[in-house]
Amino acid sequence: MEMESLRDLFVEQLKDLYSAENQIIKALPKMIKAASSEELKSAFQEHLEQTKGQVERLDQIFEELDESPRGKKCKGMEGLIAEGKELMEEDAEEDVLDAGLIASAQHVEHYEIAGYGCVRTYAQLLGMDKAAKLLQQTLDEEKETDELLSGLAENINVQAEEEAA
Amino acid sequence: MEMESLRDLFVEQLKDLYSAENQIIKALPKMIKAASSEELKSAFQEHLEQTKGQVERLDQIFEELDESPRGKKCKGMEGLIAEGKELMEEDAEEDVLDAGLIASAQHVEHYEIAGYGCVRTYAQLLGMDKAAKLLQQTLDEEKETDELLSGLAENINVQAEEEAA
Repeated sequence: MEMESLRDLFVEQLKDLYSAENQIIKALPKMIKAASSEELKSAFQEHLEQTKGQVERLDQIFEELDESPRGKKCKGMEGLIAEGKELMEEDAEEDVLDAGLIASAQHVEHYEIAGYGCVRTYAQLLGMDKAAKLLQQTLDEEKETDELLSGLAENINVQAEEEAA
Repeated sequence: MEMESLRDLFVEQLKDLYSAENQIIKALPKMIKAASSEELKSAFQEHLEQTKGQVERLDQIFEELDESPRGKKCKGMEGLIAEGKELMEEDAEEDVLDAGLIASAQHVEHYEIAGYGCVRTYAQLLGMDKAAKLLQQTLDEEKETDELLSGLAENINVQAEEEAA
């Protein structure tokens, strides 16, 4: 992989996010199944639909760039999802597992906040205004999801604490 | 690993961060060596010193909890660092590599922002005020580092773009 220009780095980071999003699409149904709280289940379900839309935005940008979205496996997301899997395999009390699933999802969201923040800035510098706008939309969605999860965590964490007391 | 209470999840997530921080301490000297920009080198150097202080804070919390910080390898950070390594092995132009190193470091920062955000909230819920304060200090530092990197990225990214033009 040549890395001679910001465009090369842009394409590489977009491929990384494309792989990350597709890993998330595979992981979310398992997290929905593992969650006990109905609110959390539906937050994950909603985020699954949103993620599919985010992949479509990436497809549009790859088309504009005339590049393939494939060819990179995002190792960062692979590690995050492996951690989530470890958690789901533990013998955890329901509310504690829900709190752990939220923590796991927030790590995923922050991976994407970092990634989309970078590619949005690259798109601006490269004068790709349409791409920059699409990437900003996704970035805003990821930040909103992170905040939504923080809100859910407060209730679920409290329940996990009371359960133990 | 038993996960019956929020305290169990708290200890597990603290171990994860302890492993993450120690992986960062090993990775940063390689990133300092790979960076070309003097500003970026010194930002990484400064963050290395800061990270050692963050480990000390975790040590204090483990002592208060009467738990060992060891026994968990943070797979999330392992993946992030593997991605950074991949980047450093590519045949990249100097400014492009610097821009990539910043992107890599921002993924690391966001992992920690997610992690410390969770454990800070758990400490508050568990009534561990001293621990909550220490974790908030680290969270603030990670957010500041992320912003500092965003600032550096703007200059370095512009240079990478001009180089290619």
